[in-house]
Amino acid sequence: MSKTNPGNYFEDFKIGQVLDHATPRTITEGDVSLYTALYGGRFALQSADSFAMECGLEAAPVDDLLVFHIVFGKTVPDVSLNAVANLGYADVQFKAPVFPGDTVKTSSTVIGLKENSNGKTGVVYVRSTGTNQMGAIVLDYVRWVMVRKKDEAAPAPEAVVPELPDRVDPSQISLPHGIDFSGYDSTLAGSPHFYEDYEVGEKIDHVDGMTIEEAEHMMATRLYQNTAKVHFNQHQMQNDRFGRRLIYGGHIISLARALSFNGLGNAQLIAAINGGSHTAPTFAGHTIYAWSEILEKSDLADNPTGGALRIRTIATKDTPCEGFPDKQDGEKRDPAVVLDIDYWAVLPKRTIAV
Amino acid sequence: MSKTNPGNYFEDFKIGQVLDHATPRTITEGDVSLYTALYGGRFALQSADSFAMECGLEAAPVDDLLVFHIVFGKTVPDVSLNAVANLGYADVQFKAPVFPGDTVKTSSTVIGLKENSNGKTGVVYVRSTGTNQMGAIVLDYVRWVMVRKKDEAAPAPEAVVPELPDRVDPSQISLPHGIDFSGYDSTLAGSPHFYEDYEVGEKIDHVDGMTIEEAEHMMATRLYQNTAKVHFNQHQMQNDRFGRRLIYGGHIISLARALSFNGLGNAQLIAAINGGSHTAPTFAGHTIYAWSEILEKSDLADNPTGGALRIRTIATKDTPCEGFPDKQDGEKRDPAVVLDIDYWAVLPKRTIAV
Amino acid sequence: MSKTNPGNYFEDFKIGQVLDHATPRTITEGDVSLYTALYGGRFALQSADSFAMECGLEAAPVDDLLVFHIVFGKTVPDVSLNAVANLGYADVQFKAPVFPGDTVKTSSTVIGLKENSNGKTGVVYVRSTGTNQMGAIVLDYVRWVMVRKKDEAAPAPEAVVPELPDRVDPSQISLPHGIDFSGYDSTLAGSPHFYEDYEVGEKIDHVDGMTIEEAEHMMATRLYQNTAKVHFNQHQMQNDRFGRRLIYGGHIISLARALSFNGLGNAQLIAAINGGSHTAPTFAGHTIYAWSEILEKSDLADNPTGGALRIRTIATKDTPCEGFPDKQDGEKRDPAVVLDIDYWAVLPKRTIAV
Repeated sequence: MSKTNPGNYFEDFKIGQVLDHATPRTITEGDVSLYTALYGGRFALQSADSFAMECGLEAAPVDDLLVFHIVFGKTVPDVSLNAVANLGYADVQFKAPVFPGDTVKTSSTVIGLKENSNGKTGVVYVRSTGTNQMGAIVLDYVRWVMVRKKDEAAPAPEAVVPELPDRVDPSQISLPHGIDFSGYDSTLAGSPHFYEDYEVGEKIDHVDGMTIEEAEHMMATRLYQNTAKVHFNQHQMQNDRFGRRLIYGGHIISLARALSFNGLGNAQLIAAINGGSHTAPTFAGHTIYAWSEILEKSDLADNPTGGALRIRTIATKDTPCEGFPDKQDGEKRDPAVVLDIDYWAVLPKRTIAV
Repeated sequence: MSKTNPGNYFEDFKIGQVLDHATPRTITEGDVSLYTALYGGRFALQSADSFAMECGLEAAPVDDLLVFHIVFGKTVPDVSLNAVANLGYADVQFKAPVFPGDTVKTSSTVIGLKENSNGKTGVVYVRSTGTNQMGAIVLDYVRWVMVRKKDEAAPAPEAVVPELPDRVDPSQISLPHGIDFSGYDSTLAGSPHFYEDYEVGEKIDHVDGMTIEEAEHMMATRLYQNTAKVHFNQHQMQNDRFGRRLIYGGHIISLARALSFNGLGNAQLIAAINGGSHTAPTFAGHTIYAWSEILEKSDLADNPTGGALRIRTIATKDTPCEGFPDKQDGEKRDPAVVLDIDYWAVLPKRTIAV
Repeated sequence: MSKTNPGNYFEDFKIGQVLDHATPRTITEGDVSLYTALYGGRFALQSADSFAMECGLEAAPVDDLLVFHIVFGKTVPDVSLNAVANLGYADVQFKAPVFPGDTVKTSSTVIGLKENSNGKTGVVYVRSTGTNQMGAIVLDYVRWVMVRKKDEAAPAPEAVVPELPDRVDPSQISLPHGIDFSGYDSTLAGSPHFYEDYEVGEKIDHVDGMTIEEAEHMMATRLYQNTAKVHFNQHQMQNDRFGRRLIYGGHIISLARALSFNGLGNAQLIAAINGGSHTAPTFAGHTIYAWSEILEKSDLADNPTGGALRIRTIATKDTPCEGFPDKQDGEKRDPAVVLDIDYWAVLPKRTIAV
């Protein structure tokens, strides 16, 4: 019998099933440096221990998205090896900071199953949880993927579709323990714009663009131990419909987040991701641009020194964003758009900062 | 007089000569992260401190092959700067684990010399030893290279050809101090297949493929401080017979090892390398695939919780391995094969694990 | 009002103005590993804690040029976002070593202003200072850039042009506290050539060449959080006069320094940079070669165990340096030359070493 991992097919998933994923991962300063080299992020909280300590933390926390990619990567061999499409994610909550030296592992619970009418595929919903070496949850989210059936004759399970929130309620936002923006230094942070300075409906063109190379997205995706074959194997992909290696969607999220520093330089933490779509594939050679819209503002339940902005960020390929490319005629999406993501970020309040 | 390193020519080597190589190297978490980003390894022991501690170690050890490449790289300026060909290596024994923060240096002893009948080159055999900052040997191996003579009139030395073992005797395998697989968690490790589950003669197609970029193999080879010119200088290599930068053979070994996770996910340690051949050159753009055959099995002298598999791994370029490409007609090697390596790996025993 | 950084224009700068730059940066072992992977440096002092400790330091210091690039990168958003050209730098003094874990930030003072006669641009001189988390100065230097005016009608400021030294006086060289080459091991360092072995006027061809890939220079430049757009955005640069992404000049300095190991292997520290010119642009695909000339020698004021060599290093593209390409006919520079840098390096003295 073959010893290689066949992955799970649609009929292998059962409601309530728990999947404990391999490979636990100690996240280190080396990962943080590579993340900086791959995206060029400049958010001060993740860049400098001294800045993080002045904000009440013990050290600079690991970038939220680096944690997301590592927690996510572990689910691939069990959840999406036989996937036809990643359909979406929701209710992504960052619950505790990760510091260099922490070890993260992931487990998932099957919370929804719905066979498609063609009898060949079905949609699997999982809630995945990343925990650290102390057992604390660092990240919790739902994603759903369309997975192939191995045996089309296998009976369809009872359809269960979980109710998912349109957005994480800001009352659920959990900031890193001890964080306090009272002494926040906006000069060192690189932006004079505090929570109060953003208005709902405001649009920001992040101006800069970043071209992607094959070596970069592959190094990133391997760093996350994400083994989805489409990212790495040109010999196989040359016969695919695009003829190219597909770039991991999370690579685009991280690029868009790094570009967003120019306009959102004080958005120090991602507290939650409400949802996101990878609306078109990206390939090496594409230049990524981004713009953002402020969707909503909220005080924080347990921290008067900061506030949460709900931000929608759109990334494009080979298209500057001064015109805020989006849906055309209110209906069709501009074909240059590759990412549409909706998240909560935490910024210091001006009224509190010295 | 020129201050640049001319390297040693065949007539510069003497039997018994000791070469203390430059540059000592502290191996850090940064190197470990880069190694993950370059190859995407998922063996749990090297990935997570928590997993390593549950196996009795103080922390996640540095990947054996990263140690090999660094120890090897140091020998290049003294041993193979004027080499025509790397002919082989044997008796490669990993004798103590390396942890981040350890500093490794290498010295070599000339153990064999044999001038070729053309009078222009000769074969040099060296035993190279990597030691850590406490003076403990971490790696010991023999390699032989064909080296140019500077002066073809120089007299041939008495031929000395060392006897080298076909394979490291498994009784010599030295596991990291304290390692104990009694509490081994195969779910976290990502494979249900223990030592007992493999049979001599069994072949495993590792399925996945990985395409190589120029930036990747050059970053890897520089990380190892291996300065062999053929890997880095396109301006010079464009006039070479291939017209391309050659990829360091060790890069292919590491890729094949990372690919072998799919089928050998519990092969947590490389205890020894019995021999290996780089049977064809590889270049950027090639996609590497691999398959393995189990050659031999052995209990361990001093550890009842694990066993050693002797594994032969074949890597190919641009050729999937479901047909186990090897020698054709029992004689000629399939031209897609680029690596043929024979090593001992240590796996936990099922009968011991909880 | 736009929340993105417009940068400063010529008329925004005032003599005596202090610019505190974002983003503080903790430099880690991860950065050190990436630096090794990008350039392949082999200077023993930066490579091994054990070697550094035998030279009296607490650990291997971070490469001087990595510190330079990080300190420099922070000045870009405030000083050179609207620059037409980087004109030069002078009086670059490395004043204290940086060790992994230290956090560096940068501030600059405007020390010179001179509007150009075209009324469209002006030259801005800044003295930039990098300090660590204890407030100690680690690096101090002057650079001058030509910056666009936003409003050509803005009145010209009184011209102030600072007097800058042709070279840092060697009496000002400040070695890392405690450094002592008495027990220096030149075998481990990889070069038998001590301070005494170099003569003023001596020229050294560093022989080796290194080809640059897009992924490499972009990863390097992002690692330094240097956001100058010309390095990253192919979509924009394809319409530029070269049609290519420009490589950050500092990338070439680091490559030349790494290549210079072959001939200057004991030049363990860069104490100061006297000046430098990026004389032609470089692009991915170019192979960099280098040669050096010894300009001057000096004892050290406070350390009898080492001496300082003033070195001029020339880097070329796609041109080996055995002919020491330089100015042609004593006037015009060889078009292959891309870098001409003049610096002080510290080497151990033979008469002291064991």
